[in-house]
Amino acid sequence: IQNTLILPMTEPELSFRGDIGIADGRIQFVGKADPSFVAQRVIDGSHHLTMPALVNAHTHLSMILMRNYKDNLPSLQAWLSEIFPIEDTLTEADILTASRLAIAETIQSGVTTFCDMYFHSEATAQAVLEGGIRANLGLTLFGDEASSRARIAEREGAMLALRDDPSGRITLSAAPHAVYTCTKETYQLANRWAREHDALLHTHLSETRKEVDDCIAANDLTPLFYLESIGALEGVRSLFAHGVFLNDEEITHLAQMNASIVHNPSSNLKLNCGIAPTSTYLKRGLHLALGTDGASSNNNLNMVEEMHLAALLGRLEGNLSAWEVVKMATLDGARALGLDQKIGSIEVGKEADLIMVDLAKSHLTPLNDPFSSLVYSAQASDVSTVLCKGEILMHDRTLTHIDVETLIEESNRTWSDVLKRR
Amino acid sequence: IQNTLILPMTEPELSFRGDIGIADGRIQFVGKADPSFVAQRVIDGSHHLTMPALVNAHTHLSMILMRNYKDNLPSLQAWLSEIFPIEDTLTEADILTASRLAIAETIQSGVTTFCDMYFHSEATAQAVLEGGIRANLGLTLFGDEASSRARIAEREGAMLALRDDPSGRITLSAAPHAVYTCTKETYQLANRWAREHDALLHTHLSETRKEVDDCIAANDLTPLFYLESIGALEGVRSLFAHGVFLNDEEITHLAQMNASIVHNPSSNLKLNCGIAPTSTYLKRGLHLALGTDGASSNNNLNMVEEMHLAALLGRLEGNLSAWEVVKMATLDGARALGLDQKIGSIEVGKEADLIMVDLAKSHLTPLNDPFSSLVYSAQASDVSTVLCKGEILMHDRTLTHIDVETLIEESNRTWSDVLKRR
Repeated sequence: IQNTLILPMTEPELSFRGDIGIADGRIQFVGKADPSFVAQRVIDGSHHLTMPALVNAHTHLSMILMRNYKDNLPSLQAWLSEIFPIEDTLTEADILTASRLAIAETIQSGVTTFCDMYFHSEATAQAVLEGGIRANLGLTLFGDEASSRARIAEREGAMLALRDDPSGRITLSAAPHAVYTCTKETYQLANRWAREHDALLHTHLSETRKEVDDCIAANDLTPLFYLESIGALEGVRSLFAHGVFLNDEEITHLAQMNASIVHNPSSNLKLNCGIAPTSTYLKRGLHLALGTDGASSNNNLNMVEEMHLAALLGRLEGNLSAWEVVKMATLDGARALGLDQKIGSIEVGKEADLIMVDLAKSHLTPLNDPFSSLVYSAQASDVSTVLCKGEILMHDRTLTHIDVETLIEESNRTWSDVLKRR
Repeated sequence: IQNTLILPMTEPELSFRGDIGIADGRIQFVGKADPSFVAQRVIDGSHHLTMPALVNAHTHLSMILMRNYKDNLPSLQAWLSEIFPIEDTLTEADILTASRLAIAETIQSGVTTFCDMYFHSEATAQAVLEGGIRANLGLTLFGDEASSRARIAEREGAMLALRDDPSGRITLSAAPHAVYTCTKETYQLANRWAREHDALLHTHLSETRKEVDDCIAANDLTPLFYLESIGALEGVRSLFAHGVFLNDEEITHLAQMNASIVHNPSSNLKLNCGIAPTSTYLKRGLHLALGTDGASSNNNLNMVEEMHLAALLGRLEGNLSAWEVVKMATLDGARALGLDQKIGSIEVGKEADLIMVDLAKSHLTPLNDPFSSLVYSAQASDVSTVLCKGEILMHDRTLTHIDVETLIEESNRTWSDVLKRR
């Protein structure tokens, strides 16, 4: 990539113009070109900025089928009562189609890595491998010990095989859903499974006021300390989705843990949960990543928009800088998933997960500050080129691995078929 | 426009498939095609939705030059101290270039009408007439009676000539900036001028808590009642930008007035003003329009994003429906500017200000609810075609009147020249 504005995400506010060399999926040089390097393909970056690809650290990918479905209902409960019966009928084939569509949207908005919690992960994994991107896939658990044991027995073989895929693009998590849907024993099983298989522990935490209040009423502890008390978090890297309502003690404790909070600003507003005080969290030393949540509570998988919203909401209670928001969506997302040695910044030796943003747009003129431009002015459609492990997944807005038109037709057919099953 | 999904914005949640006929800049039929109608040009709408063009009801268009300029500074005051000295050096030629660039961005995000408060309106008007869109241009007033009289004397001849432009695309407002920058006499002059010339009264109102507190301290009245007490609002249609902090009495009073509040959610967050309780306002009968404010406090002119944010924030304190948000950005915006007899909905006899949104996108699949899709899933770049008074200003994302590439270069040159003057 020649003569481009590079945002390496290695130092605050740093940007410079230069070249990036890629070979064998890895970054060979950044800035001044290595004269001995012979490029097979040169991409002109003169009207683009080049930065690490985005990381969507919490989603339910295949909920994309329920996008915009009855979502103006007056309450979360009323809406869920429409959604749950549909989810019960989804097959592995439905999930494959949904995952493919979602991965197209994901790449088109500059994301190469996502962290998923949903059903039929093997189908999602197939779409990930076809699409050329990365994912952390959750062994999703609900309910009591018996159902969790059954689920692990049913799924773990396939999931461990995926983890060992030679591409190295799939990692795993144990994903007990939440304190209000999983028993103590399910969390303990999840913890053991995560430790045994070097997986994350990915769970929803303190998303709503009600969740926190109910947990205190039942256990005399807030959700985080309840999970601590039952040993659910011991010896694992934890990924907590939402974290809207954390008290002072929880914040102090989280800052010392090997854990990240995934901020999901669109979903938290759309489901009327609230606004996480991210600026406070950062000041207190928490690790924050950024996510879209599922497309049925967002209603998209657009991380550029999520950066925008995180930045605007961050102004409410502090001065979250544009750079900090970009970092949340790149390097800090990679760290949250335990992938920061591989991706998340543009450094020699890291794998080349990069995006190029087309700056020749009316709404990005004048450029002035590239971080502010990205966060406050850019649209997902400004992402023109996406590379994962050095492979081009999109160039000039054209996907190289996916035929979107056919996929849209197939998705519409699948969804109308699903609706008939009600 | 043949076989398209029509969102006429005439009844809640209404959408249907059909044709739209346009002749002499006006809508001839909607729904079933008139068999006697012979179209000179047919646009296939089968993969698009067609709706009224968006109305940006409050902006400072030419602040686009300061987009993303030092906007991570810790306070509004620190940032303004960078901006004001630059604004003092802006020439009419700078404003012409800035306005042209901003109008390109405006059309590209589906807007055909904007309401402006800034300097050198004649230059902005020139760009509006070239660009083929509509504007309400403010005779912008600051300070005391003497400077307001001087400003009116200097500007009114040119502005009245613009109002009489045969295109009918320019309307006017008297635009005293705010209660904290204009004297009582300036407001009174503005009121007289507005009444005399059938113009709006466009002003900032209750944007910050400090503005409200200072006004109460100085006048023993909140800003709205202070303006009432000095006769500033008598006999005119008023357009109040922001209205973040309105008390109960003000809400009741506003609901009975010939007035609208322009909600600017991005700007209110970015400048750390707060979140206007729009759901409450609507329930209490206020007329709400939607605006971007200037691109230096947003940092774009993207009304699709403003709809998205208005909808998400509307969830915080009620259940603002997607349809209500779309109405705010179309018909209610037209009403706020006194243009709802002409534009704002798709009805026979109205002028044809329409946009077509390309639905063949991964992030708009499945469609399910077209209003939710527009508000929660769509991006400005999904707007493919824009018509104003029946004239095509953009088709398949290509602007017909504006060469964006040249304009971007010119804008960058202008801005670097402005920076040298500091």
